[in-house]
Order: sequence, then C-alpha cells, then structure tokens
Amino acid sequence: MAETPAVTASEAEEILANQPFSRLIGVEVGEVGYGYATLRIPLRADLLQQFGTVHGGVLSYAADNSLAFAAGTILGPHVLTRGFSIDFLRTSNGDHLRAYAEVVDHTSRTALTRSEIFTVAADGSEALVAAAQGSIARVER
Amino acid sequence: MAETPAVTASEAEEILANQPFSRLIGVEVGEVGYGYATLRIPLRADLLQQFGTVHGGVLSYAADNSLAFAAGTILGPHVLTRGFSIDFLRTSNGDHLRAYAEVVDHTSRTALTRSEIFTVAADGSEALVAAAQGSIARVER
Amino acid sequence: MAETPAVTASEAEEILANQPFSRLIGVEVGEVGYGYATLRIPLRADLLQQFGTVHGGVLSYAADNSLAFAAGTILGPHVLTRGFSIDFLRTSNGDHLRAYAEVVDHTSRTALTRSEIFTVAADGSEALVAAAQGSIARVER
Amino acid sequence: MAETPAVTASEAEEILANQPFSRLIGVEVGEVGYGYATLRIPLRADLLQQFGTVHGGVLSYAADNSLAFAAGTILGPHVLTRGFSIDFLRTSNGDHLRAYAEVVDHTSRTALTRSEIFTVAADGSEALVAAAQGSIARVER
Repeated sequence: MAETPAVTASEAEEILANQPFSRLIGVEVGEVGYGYATLRIPLRADLLQQFGTVHGGVLSYAADNSLAFAAGTILGPHVLTRGFSIDFLRTSNGDHLRAYAEVVDHTSRTALTRSEIFTVAADGSEALVAAAQGSIARVER
Repeated sequence: MAETPAVTASEAEEILANQPFSRLIGVEVGEVGYGYATLRIPLRADLLQQFGTVHGGVLSYAADNSLAFAAGTILGPHVLTRGFSIDFLRTSNGDHLRAYAEVVDHTSRTALTRSEIFTVAADGSEALVAAAQGSIARVER
Repeated sequence: MAETPAVTASEAEEILANQPFSRLIGVEVGEVGYGYATLRIPLRADLLQQFGTVHGGVLSYAADNSLAFAAGTILGPHVLTRGFSIDFLRTSNGDHLRAYAEVVDHTSRTALTRSEIFTVAADGSEALVAAAQGSIARVER
Repeated sequence: MAETPAVTASEAEEILANQPFSRLIGVEVGEVGYGYATLRIPLRADLLQQFGTVHGGVLSYAADNSLAFAAGTILGPHVLTRGFSIDFLRTSNGDHLRAYAEVVDHTSRTALTRSEIFTVAADGSEALVAAAQGSIARVER
C-alpha cells in the first residue's frame, strides 16, 4: 500500500501530546504508514501490577489506542473506538511495550483493526503478551 | 447470595494499593460482595483524551480490573484475566467513574464476568459509557 | 419498560420464517417485549458435535440471532449485527436451547445487547452454556 | 513452520464427518498445516437470511470451527473453544465461503487464533465478510 497515510507519525505524536492520559502513561509513536501504526510505551514501576508484570490495564490502553491510530491512518484523525476484544497470552515485563496495529479491512466510515502487544527486553528480545481486534468508526466533528 | 466473598472490600483495597498502575489511575474500592465488585475512579484532567472526555484506555482499565475483582470474590485473590471484550456507548465526562462488575457464572477455576462502567456527575446522575464481558481464571501461586 | 416493542413476537416469527438458515436450525420465538427477546431451539442429532453435546456453532447462531432480535424490539426490524463476543462455559445437551437476550443500552441507531444461552432438560432444569455481548446497528433499507 | 501438524487435513475431514452440525452445514476441509486451517462451505439457499445474503450464524459457525481447527493443528484434536469475538464487515453472497484461520501464538495448553471469512464468487473473486479472534484450550479426554 503506497497511499499516503491520513495521519502521519508527526500528526500522531501531536494527537498523543494532546491526550492527557497518554502523557500520563508515557506513550511514544513508532512507525506509522497507510493502514498501520506502532506505539511504544517505556515500562516503569508505575505501569506494573502487584506481581511485577505489566498491568493488564496498560495492555488494554495500548490495544485501544493502537487500534484507533491504525484506523486513523486511513479514516483520518477523527475516529472513535466502537469496541474491541483482547486476549492475554502471558504475563511479562521488559524495557518497553511495542503495540503494532494494522487495518484488516475498511469501508469509508469504519475500519476493522488488529493489534499485537509485545514486551521488549533491553536486549531486543520480544514476547507477545496480548492481541486485540476492534472496530473503529470515523466521526464527524 | 449470602456466601462470604473470597476477597473482601478491605482486601481489595490492599490489592489495589499494591498495584502501582492502579495507584497511578487513582482507583478506590466501592461495594464488594460474593460475586460482585465496584470500583470508583475520581476523574481528573490526567484521565481524559483530547476531546475532554474520559480516555477509552481508562474505561478499558476499569473494565479489566473490575472484571477481575468480581471474579476474585469467588475464585480468591490469585486470578488473571484471560481476555475481555468491551463496547463503548458514548463519550462522557463527570465527577467520577463507577465500574460495577458481577459474575454471571463460574466453575471452580474460571469465572465469566460482566462489567458496566458509568460516568457519575456531581449531582449523582449517571451515564453508561461502556460495557464489558470477560473470562477470568484462578491461578496457582 | 412498558413501551410497545418495535418488533412483536408474531413479527419475529415471520422474520425467522423468512430466514432459510433459521428454518434449517429450527428456531422458535419465545417471549418478546420492548428490549428483550427469547429464542428456543429444539435440540436434535443434527445440532450436535462429535462428543454428543451441542455444537458451538449452534450456540454462536443462537447468540447472533437473539442479540439482533432483542435490538430489533427497540430499533425496528432492519438491523445488522456489527459484531459480538461469546464465552462458552460448559458443554451440554438437553431437550432444547433457550437464548434470552436483552438490550443494555441504546441510541437511536445502535444497541448494546447481551444474551445468555441455556440448555434446558426435559425436566425443565437449565444449565448456562454460553454468554454473549454484541453491538447491533439499525440499517436503512 | 515446517513442523508436522497435530491434525492433518484427512484427520480434520474425519472430525468434521463426525460432527452432525458440520454435516448439516456442509463443510469441507481446505488446506491444513502446522498452525493454520482452511474450511470451505458451499453456499446454498439454506444458509442465507431473509435478504439473500449469508446468515451471520453461518459466519459465526465458520469462525468458531476454523479457529478450533487451526488450534488443533498444534494442540491436537481434543480442543474446546473458550470464546471468540467476531466483527462483521459487509453482507454478501457467493459460490462458497472460505474461512482461513491461523494460530497467532500458543502455550502447551492454549492457542490464540484468528480467522478471516470470505465469500468467494464463481469467478474466484473474494470479499472479506467477517474476522474473528478466539481462545482455544486443549482438553484431557
């Protein structure tokens, strides 16, 4: 897909910078193109649960936001997540989270997107910790 | 259901106090009994998105954690969320979030739970903003 | 809720009679009112899987159709299921399936619905075998 | 992945032949290998709904069964679907359905699988009509 993304990486960064909750989490934008988006979340003590692994709520946040950003690269910046489902595979920790989402298919108004969320260790090794599928709608503003 | 919950409200508070991410969000425990649990999240600027409404990631966190706490009142404190699905109904803001989750059915090892998440205004009026269904498993530790 | 359902039980029966796949399954309409609908599926050998229990595909059908019928009692007969999630609790068989679905909340165009699917034995005893949550949209025709 | 599938195409055919509901639907096994499985459902009037398009319950069946078969190629033939979510993209009809499912990741006891379901026209052109994600568990028998 050589089309120009409707939201570029630098526009995605600006959107995240305007989301107070994303700032609280500390999200960064990774590779973004037409139909896909990557988010990166440096892991720190604040994002863990009592067992020392990443809190499921952080993974859910990463799913929700990466699904919407991937959809936004096709539908434009004004999108809302209608819903998603997430399956957790294993508990883990690491240097950072990487959430990669891509659009499976879309109409002019909605996109079906999928996301995979990995913990990445300091040595670069990865473990898949969750996978999500969601439906995103373009909204008029 | 007159049975004693396997996790009481004060034990739930202790678990939340040991979850750094839950402290970052600022969650409080509401009413807890056998088969159900309520979480309360005071809303503040940090939990919003760019449109001034509660961030979907906060709602996802509230779903994930309330589902697990409701399951824990039957399965005990050592539980993990296998997965859940969430549908968003409307965007909203308010004084605080209220997430009420209850167990629909369970075996000795797993529970099917559902959660409803409301924004509550300062005058007490509520709006349902999301609903979730999930599967929670007891884990050996 | 004392409002008149947008689809009555007899209209639901007519819709089912026009769905060839529903005739193949052999579905009957149970109690229907504003915001809820019940389907009944007599169990026979054709609806089982290799272990002698009801096939998951029959439960999925029952979820899909009951969610849509419940939504139709508010949104009217022209609805489409956008998606749903289903959790299976146990394998079972019985005299018939009972799928009870109700609308959790709705706007003028969409409804969030939940369904519970039970096997019912000849003596009337029931076992919950699956639960579903879905999003249904009104469509213009 | 060059590993030998734990369930081959001919074993998958035998399993389907032993599932009365799969015979009622008329499912055929397509390409099967380690970590993936394809099902094919010739479309006929019995599988449609009142608008002349494939009934959502048939798509749900195709999702459920393809997810389980893909998991079975790694976990072995004794598996149960714990749950899945499905999103519908468009209504369609065609010569047959093709459901392709693959394992995203797995442990020794569970697999996370995804499925895409296409209508295929007589001229071979395809339309994606639904996508699903599910969790499958190995069961002891």
